[in-house]
Amino acid sequence: MRLSTYLMPTLKENPLEAQIVSHRLMLRAGMIRQSAAGIYTWLPLGYRVLRKIEQIVREEQDRAGAQELLMPTLQNSELWKQSGRYDAYGPEMLRITDRHDRVLVYGPTAEEVINDIARNELKSYKETPKILYNIQWKFRDEVRPRFGVMRGREFLMKDAYSFDLTYEGAKHSYNKMFVAYLRTFARCGVHAIPMKASTGPIGGDLSHEFIVLAETGEEQVYCHKDYLNMEIPNEDIDYNSDLEPLYQKWTSLYAATEEKFDKEEADKIGDNLISARGIEVGQVFYYGKKYSIPMNVSVMGEDGKPVYIEGGCYGIGVSRLMGAIIEACHDDNGIIWPESVAPFKVGLINLTTGKEISDKACEDMYSKLVKAGVEVLYDDRNERAGVKFSTMDLIGLPWQVLVGARGLEKGVVEIKNRKTGEKKEVSVEEAINFLTK
Amino acid sequence: MRLSTYLMPTLKENPLEAQIVSHRLMLRAGMIRQSAAGIYTWLPLGYRVLRKIEQIVREEQDRAGAQELLMPTLQNSELWKQSGRYDAYGPEMLRITDRHDRVLVYGPTAEEVINDIARNELKSYKETPKILYNIQWKFRDEVRPRFGVMRGREFLMKDAYSFDLTYEGAKHSYNKMFVAYLRTFARCGVHAIPMKASTGPIGGDLSHEFIVLAETGEEQVYCHKDYLNMEIPNEDIDYNSDLEPLYQKWTSLYAATEEKFDKEEADKIGDNLISARGIEVGQVFYYGKKYSIPMNVSVMGEDGKPVYIEGGCYGIGVSRLMGAIIEACHDDNGIIWPESVAPFKVGLINLTTGKEISDKACEDMYSKLVKAGVEVLYDDRNERAGVKFSTMDLIGLPWQVLVGARGLEKGVVEIKNRKTGEKKEVSVEEAINFLTK
Repeated sequence: MRLSTYLMPTLKENPLEAQIVSHRLMLRAGMIRQSAAGIYTWLPLGYRVLRKIEQIVREEQDRAGAQELLMPTLQNSELWKQSGRYDAYGPEMLRITDRHDRVLVYGPTAEEVINDIARNELKSYKETPKILYNIQWKFRDEVRPRFGVMRGREFLMKDAYSFDLTYEGAKHSYNKMFVAYLRTFARCGVHAIPMKASTGPIGGDLSHEFIVLAETGEEQVYCHKDYLNMEIPNEDIDYNSDLEPLYQKWTSLYAATEEKFDKEEADKIGDNLISARGIEVGQVFYYGKKYSIPMNVSVMGEDGKPVYIEGGCYGIGVSRLMGAIIEACHDDNGIIWPESVAPFKVGLINLTTGKEISDKACEDMYSKLVKAGVEVLYDDRNERAGVKFSTMDLIGLPWQVLVGARGLEKGVVEIKNRKTGEKKEVSVEEAINFLTK
Repeated sequence: MRLSTYLMPTLKENPLEAQIVSHRLMLRAGMIRQSAAGIYTWLPLGYRVLRKIEQIVREEQDRAGAQELLMPTLQNSELWKQSGRYDAYGPEMLRITDRHDRVLVYGPTAEEVINDIARNELKSYKETPKILYNIQWKFRDEVRPRFGVMRGREFLMKDAYSFDLTYEGAKHSYNKMFVAYLRTFARCGVHAIPMKASTGPIGGDLSHEFIVLAETGEEQVYCHKDYLNMEIPNEDIDYNSDLEPLYQKWTSLYAATEEKFDKEEADKIGDNLISARGIEVGQVFYYGKKYSIPMNVSVMGEDGKPVYIEGGCYGIGVSRLMGAIIEACHDDNGIIWPESVAPFKVGLINLTTGKEISDKACEDMYSKLVKAGVEVLYDDRNERAGVKFSTMDLIGLPWQVLVGARGLEKGVVEIKNRKTGEKKEVSVEEAINFLTK
C-alpha cells in the first residue's frame, strides 16, 4: 500500500476526549473514528488489525473443534422472555420496536439464540458434544461509553457455546476453550493469565477471566509470579486428550482480580505475589442447565429418555483485545505491534522522495516485497524525513526500512526494529532477503 | 470435517414457508434457520459459503484499488437529517431510541456515515481519488420479508463509495467498480449482465443493475443474446488504464429490466433479443454532488479553493448473491455449487461404514486430502448409502468420492462430478491425485 493514496489520517496532537493510551493511539494513528457515542468506524489501518485478531481467534477456535456459524445482530425478544433474562438484563440491552410493533433486541450476547438453535436441531445424544461459536457485532448500551474500543457500545465479540450431556463432558469443553484461550492471546502477542471470576448475569458456578497485565490496565489484579513464564500449549496439542492436568497447572497457583482478592490466600505465597494492573480480554463460564431447563433444550439420551443439556459459554472481546494489545505494547512514540497482528509487517520509508536514486530503489523494493507476499506500507509522500519517522513510529509496524539518496550512494539502506530500536545498515538485497524470510 | 460431528441439520421435506428454490434448498441443506421474520442464523455450512463469496467480493474490490474499512451497524440519526434523507427514507429504516433518548438508525446503507468520514478526513485534492468500501450487515424493515436471504431484513452488503474532484474522475471510479463487478460475479460462478437502471432513493443520473439470468428469477428482463458470451476482463486488467472502451462494450447492446423495457428499442434487435427471468445482485450509481452539497463534503482544490466531491456508490448484496447463485445453479436433487464458493470441494462418502476395509480407506483418504489443503466433508455417519447419496446431492459439493467395500476389493473408488453426473472408477491414489490437482 502506498501511503500517498491510503486513508490513514494521523493526528499530531493528543485528542482531548481520549483518556487512555490505546484510545489516544488508535485515534492518532488514524485507526478509528467515533461515529456516535461508543460507536466507531474502523478506518483501513484499524480494520486490518481487527481482521488479523479475528482470524487468530477463529483459527484457535477451529483447532479446538468448535464450529463457526453466524447469528444475527438483532434477536427475537420472545427468546429472552423464555430464558427469563428479558427483564433481568436491564437498560444495557437495546430494545427495538419494528414497523409491525414487534420487539427485537440488539444482542448483547447470544445464549438465547444459540439455545433456540440447539433445541430445534440437536435431537440425539449422538449429536453431542458440540461447541458452536460466532464472531459478530454486539451492542451494550453503556451509561457512559469511554476508553475508545475498550468500553464501546457496539463491539466485536467471539462467543462460543458448548452442549454436553454430563458435567464431565461440559468440563472437558470448558477445558478446551480454556486452552484455546491461552493459545489465542499468546498468538496475539500478549500473555493472558486466567483468574477465578464471578459469573454475574450469565450465571453458573465456574468461571475464569483472562487478564492481560498492563501498566495502564483498568483493574488491580494479583497473581503468583510463576504465571509470567508459564508455558503456552503448542499447536500440536490434542484437544481430545485429557486436558485436566493442563487446566490444573494453569489454575492451581494464586490469581485473583481485586473483586476476588483474598488477603489470607495472597499472603501465603509471600514474595511470589505480583500486584499489577490488568485488562480483561476474555471470560469462560460453565453454567450447567441454567438455559436448558427454562428453554427446554434436551436431547434423547442413550436410554431413550430426554437429557437436559449441560452448557457453557466462552467470550473474547475481539475489538477490546485490540485495545488491550496496544495498552500492553507501546512506548512514548506510539504503538509497537506484535508481528502476528501488525497491519503491515514493513514500513518502507523513502527519505528523499523526488530524488531518482531513492524513488527507483524504493519502487523496486516495494514491488519485490509485495510480490513475495510481504505486507508493506510504502511512505512515498512528499514529506520531510522527520515527519515520516514519527508517522512510522506512531503506527508501530514491526520493521522499518529507511531508504535515502546518501545511503544508496554507499550501497546501503537501514533496517530498524520498532520494538528494540536497533538499526543496521545492509544492502538492498540483504534487506529484501531479511524481510522475506 | 466429519459429518457425524458437524451441525448440518438437513431436511427431507420441503419446508412450507419457502416459496422459492434457493430458500427451500438453503433450509433443506441445513445452511440457514430463521431466527425472527426476515432474520437468519447462518449455520456452519451456509456460513462457509457466505464467507467465500465475501472473500471474492473483497479481493476484487482490493484489485480495483478500493480500500476496506468498517462502518458500524448503528448510525447517528443526525447525519440522516443533514443529508435530508431522515424523513425521506420511510418505515423501511429501523429507528432506535437508546437509554439517553438519542435516536440511532440501523444502517440500510451508509452514504451519510462515509460522507461524514470524508468531510472530516479528506482535506486536499491530493487525497483524491478514493474508493472506500465495507462489507457489513444492514437492515431494511421490509413490510413482508420473504424468499429467505433474497429479501431478508438483516442482510450482508458490500457497499463502496467513491470520492472524486470531477465528473470525469467520478466516471472512471464508476468504470472501475463496473469492471470489478463483472469479475466478481463471474468468479462466483454466475454471469451477471449490467442493465441500465433507475436510481431510486439513492439519487443521481447514471446507474446499472447487475442481473443474473435464472429461470426462477424475480423479474422479467430483456437483453441482446451477445451478452451471454461476452468475455469477462481477466485478472491482469489495469484499473488505472482507460476503462471506457470496456464500459462501452458492456453497455452499448440492448439490456433492460421490465421497468425500463422499451418495445421500440427491443424490436430493433429482432431475433437477437432474449427475454428471460433475472435476479438483481448488484447496482452501481453515480450521484454527483447529491451528498457533498448538503453535507458540505469538499476538499481544497489545486487553486486553493474548495471543491465539492463528485460521488458514487456501489452495492453488492452478498447474502442475496448466495441465493442468486443457488437459483442459477441447482437441479431436482439439490444445489450445484460453483467450485469457487462451494462450502467444501469434496464429499467423501463411506458407503459401508463399519466395514474395516472402507473405514480404513476413507480415513486414509480423508487425512491425505486434508493435509494437502483440500476441503473435504467426510460422511462417516452410520447411515444407508441411499441417504448419503441424497444428502451429498442436496448440499451440492462439486466432487463426490464413493468408497465401498466391494469397490475396494477390486482396488477402486468412484469419483462423481455433481454438475454433470459423470462417474469414473479410479484407484485410491488416482482419486487423491485428481482431487489435489
